[in-house]
Amino acid sequence: MLPTADQALVDAVIGAPGPAQRRAIAKTITLLESSRDDHRRRADEVLNTLLPKSGRSFRLGISGVPGVGKSTFIEALGLYLIGQGHRVAVLAIDPSSSVSGGSILGDKTRMEMLSVNENAFIRPSPASGTLGGVAERTRESMLVAEAAGYDVVIVETVGVGQSETAVSGMTDMFVLLQLPNAGDDLQAIKKGVMELADLVVINKADLDEAAATRARAQITSALRLFGQHGNAMHDQSLWHPQVMQLSALKSQGLPEFWAQVSRFRELQTANGRLAARRHAQDQAWMWERIEAGLKNRFRHHPGVRDMLPAVTAEVRAGRLAASVAARRLLDLMN
Amino acid sequence: MLPTADQALVDAVIGAPGPAQRRAIAKTITLLESSRDDHRRRADEVLNTLLPKSGRSFRLGISGVPGVGKSTFIEALGLYLIGQGHRVAVLAIDPSSSVSGGSILGDKTRMEMLSVNENAFIRPSPASGTLGGVAERTRESMLVAEAAGYDVVIVETVGVGQSETAVSGMTDMFVLLQLPNAGDDLQAIKKGVMELADLVVINKADLDEAAATRARAQITSALRLFGQHGNAMHDQSLWHPQVMQLSALKSQGLPEFWAQVSRFRELQTANGRLAARRHAQDQAWMWERIEAGLKNRFRHHPGVRDMLPAVTAEVRAGRLAASVAARRLLDLMN
Repeated sequence: MLPTADQALVDAVIGAPGPAQRRAIAKTITLLESSRDDHRRRADEVLNTLLPKSGRSFRLGISGVPGVGKSTFIEALGLYLIGQGHRVAVLAIDPSSSVSGGSILGDKTRMEMLSVNENAFIRPSPASGTLGGVAERTRESMLVAEAAGYDVVIVETVGVGQSETAVSGMTDMFVLLQLPNAGDDLQAIKKGVMELADLVVINKADLDEAAATRARAQITSALRLFGQHGNAMHDQSLWHPQVMQLSALKSQGLPEFWAQVSRFRELQTANGRLAARRHAQDQAWMWERIEAGLKNRFRHHPGVRDMLPAVTAEVRAGRLAASVAARRLLDLMN
Repeated sequence: MLPTADQALVDAVIGAPGPAQRRAIAKTITLLESSRDDHRRRADEVLNTLLPKSGRSFRLGISGVPGVGKSTFIEALGLYLIGQGHRVAVLAIDPSSSVSGGSILGDKTRMEMLSVNENAFIRPSPASGTLGGVAERTRESMLVAEAAGYDVVIVETVGVGQSETAVSGMTDMFVLLQLPNAGDDLQAIKKGVMELADLVVINKADLDEAAATRARAQITSALRLFGQHGNAMHDQSLWHPQVMQLSALKSQGLPEFWAQVSRFRELQTANGRLAARRHAQDQAWMWERIEAGLKNRFRHHPGVRDMLPAVTAEVRAGRLAASVAARRLLDLMN
């Protein structure tokens, strides 16, 4: 049983759409993001109560370098989907926002029309902590938005550090936006982001059609390189990563984009990979948080905290083998 | 102060080369590999006593798919180096050997001439445990071989799972052996191994010179893709990954290979990167072992062991959020 206030919060989140629901969602996410232990315990109970109502959305991850036109694309896509009868939540992972103090979605004027639409819910990236912590808050916020009936959840990232891996690890489909220029592709291959992509979208294709066509051919061969080989390439029950071009600014190509997403969703549902992906993500998420928690406890253990600098210095000076140092520090926790 | 028997072991390891030293090295490594707690404590003390004598070798990592000719290459290189006055230790990381029961170096007849040479020490991969555990034993064996005066330590791997990363993470230079065929290159790029390579060697180049030349050009452009950009390419104080071809079977190209290795070593010593790489490796190693130890304690904690299956099932059934599950399991350790 939840305390009365928290039960009221849950009821409002799963209640009718409108200003009261929006306030309840925002309040729940603020509770999730609190660093106070009592808030965290309440948030856990609220989250578990909402959990059976979650999971019924399509989770779409979107990444791309600054300047690729992510905000324009997400606004155009969101408005298009709302026009089709969907309710759209937009969340973000930006581990740099705690440093810069800003966030890609902090400046809501960049999605001016979407942010005032009553069928959209936009929430900037949690602004503090490690990537793991930021990603955890975003995953939990996604569950809250789903319980509130948002049936498309878009998680975007600017691609700082390992944030693409985090977004790919919490979504059903990972879309990479690219500019029509080859250097951009090489960076994505080099960083290992291209491997994660279920769909690559060449945005701003109208600016230079010849370059966009070249980029498309290059990315297609890169995806083949990273993809399955042999007969699997011809297996119609499996999804093979695709490349397409569009222009978000001119709202060109959005129906085609959503048709690809829908085809992906149907295939992955039919062949069981969508459910398998979510189960694997949950397991990986649980262990990621356990490992982060264990490491955090280790660093805050009084004995370890006292000894760590000296032991690290001994290793550095070559007077203590690293493996022996690890065992000595671990023994301090007994 | 070490117990008398262990001090005698240390004295024999750092003593004069010969059969007694070889036996002492083998005995020390067996002690390191033991899973008994009292052996582990003794091994830690022995290792720390040997540590000031270690570190004076050049550590060469060698990887390549089965069939590329690794054993032939290492035997030819080892005999060449012994001919130049070096003492050569060959260690291995093969995390699959605990499954298969065999090891790349287990069958010493594959390095028949090297294994009977008194200036060579060959040790197969530790045959049990996780990759992290296997790698730790190999790192520690490397320190023992160095304390015994082996001035070239070769660590080889068949490249199962993440073992190339482990080998690259304990050596001064990482060499990738390739066959003269392009599919092989693509696999190495796909697996992220090419990025680790300081030097790529196309072996069996004599079999098809045209293919070897094509492979060399392809790998060179792949290395440029993964390498530094801009002015750094022209900085003569930095090493830029190289590609060369040779034939280990015909002992062709070994002096050129060792000349490249020596040039790498001189550059990296002069620009400080060799020392920096070793320091970073020690830190990473310490934290890798701490994290593995923490996770191991977690899994063996009685409360966690009892609850883990049920909690995992609740997460899988969608009745418990993964982050909440992680916190509940962590709370059991208090």
